[in-house]
Amino acid sequence: MPSSRYINTPLTRSASPAEWRATFRAGQPQSHTSGLAERHVQGNVVILPKAWADDFLRYCQRNPKPCPLLAVTEPGDAALPSLGADIDLRTDLPRYRVWREGECVDEPTDIRALWRDDMVGFVIGCSFSFEQALMDEGIRLRHVDQRRNVAMFRTALPTVSAGPFSGPLVVTMRPLKAADAVRAVQITSRYPAVHGAPVHLGDPALIGVHDLSRPDYGDAVEVMPHELPVFWACGVTPQAALLQARPPLAITHAPGAMLMTDRLNHELAAF
Amino acid sequence: MPSSRYINTPLTRSASPAEWRATFRAGQPQSHTSGLAERHVQGNVVILPKAWADDFLRYCQRNPKPCPLLAVTEPGDAALPSLGADIDLRTDLPRYRVWREGECVDEPTDIRALWRDDMVGFVIGCSFSFEQALMDEGIRLRHVDQRRNVAMFRTALPTVSAGPFSGPLVVTMRPLKAADAVRAVQITSRYPAVHGAPVHLGDPALIGVHDLSRPDYGDAVEVMPHELPVFWACGVTPQAALLQARPPLAITHAPGAMLMTDRLNHELAAF
Repeated sequence: MPSSRYINTPLTRSASPAEWRATFRAGQPQSHTSGLAERHVQGNVVILPKAWADDFLRYCQRNPKPCPLLAVTEPGDAALPSLGADIDLRTDLPRYRVWREGECVDEPTDIRALWRDDMVGFVIGCSFSFEQALMDEGIRLRHVDQRRNVAMFRTALPTVSAGPFSGPLVVTMRPLKAADAVRAVQITSRYPAVHGAPVHLGDPALIGVHDLSRPDYGDAVEVMPHELPVFWACGVTPQAALLQARPPLAITHAPGAMLMTDRLNHELAAF
Repeated sequence: MPSSRYINTPLTRSASPAEWRATFRAGQPQSHTSGLAERHVQGNVVILPKAWADDFLRYCQRNPKPCPLLAVTEPGDAALPSLGADIDLRTDLPRYRVWREGECVDEPTDIRALWRDDMVGFVIGCSFSFEQALMDEGIRLRHVDQRRNVAMFRTALPTVSAGPFSGPLVVTMRPLKAADAVRAVQITSRYPAVHGAPVHLGDPALIGVHDLSRPDYGDAVEVMPHELPVFWACGVTPQAALLQARPPLAITHAPGAMLMTDRLNHELAAF
């Protein structure tokens, strides 16, 4: 991981997730959490009023590949004891996005003023965990090598709806040689809690993706002639469904500014 | 499995491997063993004089994907107790091929007259086991649906040589939709003793295969536009290396006429 990722902070590469959370809680600026405490699970965050949370929970349950739930709070309680003893979901992310009727209205670093006793927080697995597992096995990821965000695409594959939540499956794409693609299926199959095995590989048109050079989110990354594009379900899927549902209030992590948990990536491995 | 496969014999679909071996031992004709006692492991057989067997054993050890060894006999002993209490490798296959200096000189149904006290028998895992596992999970295999032999190709990938044994990796090809290809990687990864995970998928030219409609062995099978060709290491690889080495005497199973063992396919599953 490039050292420039830590330039904003006095903490070092060896800092624990709890130490990072403490700095965010204290207001220390940090643009994103990629590469921080990299053996530990990071999560996508969605916070909704209870009136919307029940449908959203069913949406996640029905779409486990894009929406693998790591934890859900009690209504009104910002704690997530299964992910870290001291976690306070109102303060512990480096940056949040506040959405009203599906429009982003603010990017605060603290949401205590917005918290209510009917708020429910969801933590959804993130591909950082399986990317670390892939790199640990010697598989090079081009977007990491090039210090870009992963390329993400809206597909023609629908998710299963629940109440107001519906929309297309969003996928990430990583170009891999065939032998690495086979290894990547094996490795990511061990991690169902962070999107699991690929949902597609090969011809992007078969899932309604027509131009790999124009991702819907993130950065484009080249696919070499000897490579296959390999597609995984992406945690942007529930966020897209959320925005499309236009709840009066929703709070999410800002892009790349995830919840850092105390769980180790390898604790998520299924076998 | 089509009932025509059993037309030559009074045994039924429910017959055990031991019952099938007894009929072969008694001289009952049977062209091939595909689909017989299909929950049980079948194996490729190679029999060599001890002077050649040691190199061949090292060749298998160095190339475990095409040459997964299920069992090796003691020199001069035709028993394989780990695969079936009563197995006699000299009589229990429906048909053999006898090779002298790499040329097939006979196709007997019994090799007792050729057996010597320096003969060593090798049993090598066969894709029938993983094909059954794939079909049990609902994955359709076109060559099975079309009652053809699987398509096999000599690749540009070399095996690791040992003594006189060397040659290209031979692969089988099965066309699959991407989602089934991902499942097939997961399922066959559980079966390292019968070739394990695919060695390649996608563009055949990358492994030196230039025309999928012209297999080097077996029958051609169509790849539809929405499918990927998926390639597994094949038990023909050691046989090709064997014939190229031109030992003075070698005995193998006749194509499709495998050793039927008492082991269940699912006993081979790694997890």
